[in-house]
Amino acid sequence: MNNHLLKKIESKSAVIGVIGLGYVGLPLALEYALKGFKTIGFDTDEKKIPILNSGKSYIKHIKKEKIQKAVKNKKFFATDDFSRLTETDVIIICVPTPLNDHREPDMTYIVNSGNVISQYMKKGQFISLESSTYPGTTEEILLPMFENAPLTQQISNKKFIVGKDFYLAFSPEREDPNNPKYSTATIPKVVGGVTQNCLKIALALYNQVIVNTVPVSSPRAAEATKLLENIYRSINIALVNELKMVFDRMNIDIWEVINAASTKPFGFQPFYPGPGLGGHCIPIDPFYLTWKAREYEISTKFIELAGEINTFMPYYVVDKASEILNKFRKSLNGAKILILGVSYKKDVDDMRESPSLKLIEILKAKGATVDYNDPYVPELPETRKYNFDLTSVELTKNNLSKYDLILLSTDHTNYNYKFINSASKLILDTRNAFERAGVKSEKIFKA
Amino acid sequence: MNNHLLKKIESKSAVIGVIGLGYVGLPLALEYALKGFKTIGFDTDEKKIPILNSGKSYIKHIKKEKIQKAVKNKKFFATDDFSRLTETDVIIICVPTPLNDHREPDMTYIVNSGNVISQYMKKGQFISLESSTYPGTTEEILLPMFENAPLTQQISNKKFIVGKDFYLAFSPEREDPNNPKYSTATIPKVVGGVTQNCLKIALALYNQVIVNTVPVSSPRAAEATKLLENIYRSINIALVNELKMVFDRMNIDIWEVINAASTKPFGFQPFYPGPGLGGHCIPIDPFYLTWKAREYEISTKFIELAGEINTFMPYYVVDKASEILNKFRKSLNGAKILILGVSYKKDVDDMRESPSLKLIEILKAKGATVDYNDPYVPELPETRKYNFDLTSVELTKNNLSKYDLILLSTDHTNYNYKFINSASKLILDTRNAFERAGVKSEKIFKA
Repeated sequence: MNNHLLKKIESKSAVIGVIGLGYVGLPLALEYALKGFKTIGFDTDEKKIPILNSGKSYIKHIKKEKIQKAVKNKKFFATDDFSRLTETDVIIICVPTPLNDHREPDMTYIVNSGNVISQYMKKGQFISLESSTYPGTTEEILLPMFENAPLTQQISNKKFIVGKDFYLAFSPEREDPNNPKYSTATIPKVVGGVTQNCLKIALALYNQVIVNTVPVSSPRAAEATKLLENIYRSINIALVNELKMVFDRMNIDIWEVINAASTKPFGFQPFYPGPGLGGHCIPIDPFYLTWKAREYEISTKFIELAGEINTFMPYYVVDKASEILNKFRKSLNGAKILILGVSYKKDVDDMRESPSLKLIEILKAKGATVDYNDPYVPELPETRKYNFDLTSVELTKNNLSKYDLILLSTDHTNYNYKFINSASKLILDTRNAFERAGVKSEKIFKA
Repeated sequence: MNNHLLKKIESKSAVIGVIGLGYVGLPLALEYALKGFKTIGFDTDEKKIPILNSGKSYIKHIKKEKIQKAVKNKKFFATDDFSRLTETDVIIICVPTPLNDHREPDMTYIVNSGNVISQYMKKGQFISLESSTYPGTTEEILLPMFENAPLTQQISNKKFIVGKDFYLAFSPEREDPNNPKYSTATIPKVVGGVTQNCLKIALALYNQVIVNTVPVSSPRAAEATKLLENIYRSINIALVNELKMVFDRMNIDIWEVINAASTKPFGFQPFYPGPGLGGHCIPIDPFYLTWKAREYEISTKFIELAGEINTFMPYYVVDKASEILNKFRKSLNGAKILILGVSYKKDVDDMRESPSLKLIEILKAKGATVDYNDPYVPELPETRKYNFDLTSVELTKNNLSKYDLILLSTDHTNYNYKFINSASKLILDTRNAFERAGVKSEKIFKA
């Protein structure tokens, strides 16, 4: 057992390296830096480095004051020079795990991180993976890489031994950007170590910044935990999306039903329908399990069905838009449509997997002219899939009146729903936002 | 508006009739009686009548003291004479809504109740339906029956007018037998009236005994609310059942994963796998929506999938039993198996739709000799589907040692798991009950 590393962690003299300075890695790095650990942030995106080192932020809900404080105290700096991993005692991997176009796990970022770490690895280091991934990743992908780390770093010709020469754990991130109640430090953290020693160090490390750590028996169990959490959400959102379509046929308002069911004081948790799934986790992570399950010759039918229904939702919304325009003898082809809200959820500037982009694509393909407004997204960024040359339209009375249909996709809190209603011809609301704001009108439809 | 009935309700002089004295109707009738309302309980099962009128109970969690008090105060009596409906001002229907063998709604009990009510109906009465059913039942089945109630009860040749001559609402029961925190009076109650007057009377009536009433816009919305609550549970139980099978292949313990995920302080609600669905609600109600949806030419894929997986679970458990016996070179055919727990959930004596009965059926069909123990079920009752001539086996050391396999189906709290483990050869635990009781052993397997 490496008491040396444990002591360094407890005395806050351990140097923390965080790979990937996005929604997960940046706030975690700042937690360590602000607790007094020397923390080095690594990212391959060289644009991020000078922003952070000059005390600025590129994520809306991460305040620049926090970064400034960490930088000023000389506890934090960012770099794209991965050779500086040699300066660290602890390495935490917070890189993306997307899907490719065939809904298969894209392990590039994890594999690249593993490669660069094993290149610079030294004896006694602890490495933790936080990226959501399939059960087995830590032990099947990272472990062999580190066991076979280049010999120059090794004492003899022997392999590195996990739990003795280095330590490895999986601890899933549980970030919920913009959650008013919980942030990085206050969300309990599940931890699974490859060996008991690995777990011991992992718990000591995370206990420094996290309110509560939850040990599990293996990295595999920790990987499965994160997937269960996201699968649960994906399936329940898909369920209310399916029921929305069923109840709509029966002339029942799904939002009224969900609100009534929410008064049950046990055994119910409300989920709400929407124009499709967004964000980096819910639309993606469940398929990591689906992919892995095939190796075991078993299928994950709920995940597949949820994927099918959630993927269909933007098409359903466009159908509804077409139906409503049709009531007024207007075709979708040639209609002017304004989309309100393009971030994947309300009150954030995060565009990852936003269903609004899919809505724009489908509407344009059917001949509509599409604009958008989003107070947090002044211009549409280029994403892996989309590149629309659009900037946010100002919400003036004159502008609103020009559109045949206003399509509310993301229910930002600071929208003036009363004003939007008063200035618009026709509204399609995918979030029940107008009714929730107390605005009722015959020109508002729901989808 | 019938202020007369409202005043009678408010002054507690209204006479309450409750049709169906089971898990829902009996506790509700007692609530009214103990609040001072003269309450008449109606049931077609003549065996129940003398039991109740002599102050006894036939439901474990409904204490006889409560019944004695209501009977003694002369506020409550039971009868199978439905002509006494003429004595009531309010009629609450709490009858079963099962499925037939083809998973179609069996509306017999609701239709029979509607028929007998319309036969004895008088002007000014209020009727509420509480049975879980498909959206539309109240307005499509009961409303026309009451509008066309026999002419003898009517002033002229005209139809009864709802909201004027009589009042009709739907208010779903939310009973959770044995819930330590909530009972009939403390669970908020959703109410949907056919007209605004119907809603007004319904709220006044339920406010007399229920802590909090939740008005919705229509009976349809109230019917849909109850279904959503049960569909949510059915789908989430099926999800963890599916994941149990997936994780089992990956050598991951689903219970460990669920417990770890439960530490997430937002966006997660734990459900646990089991040997199949039981009880009167969860395995049945969702298919009421499936059936109704066909009328609207739309399918409910999540409900179908949940049904498929939950129905498969007893077969999965039997496969596991066979697999474990096989490890010890024993065939299921000829094996002696003891099932622990036959009620559908722990600590109750309710056998409705219990998966233990299905387990017995499958095991016997494969040639096993099956016995059971249940502290709350001294002998297996005859059900619509099953008639096993079995009585509960005493849990002695000698008895336990006779079985090749102990199959835990229902995790009653008062089982002595340590003792059972010590006296048994081999255990298959479908509820993770032994581990939760701190009992670990190599002879305990999970399914």
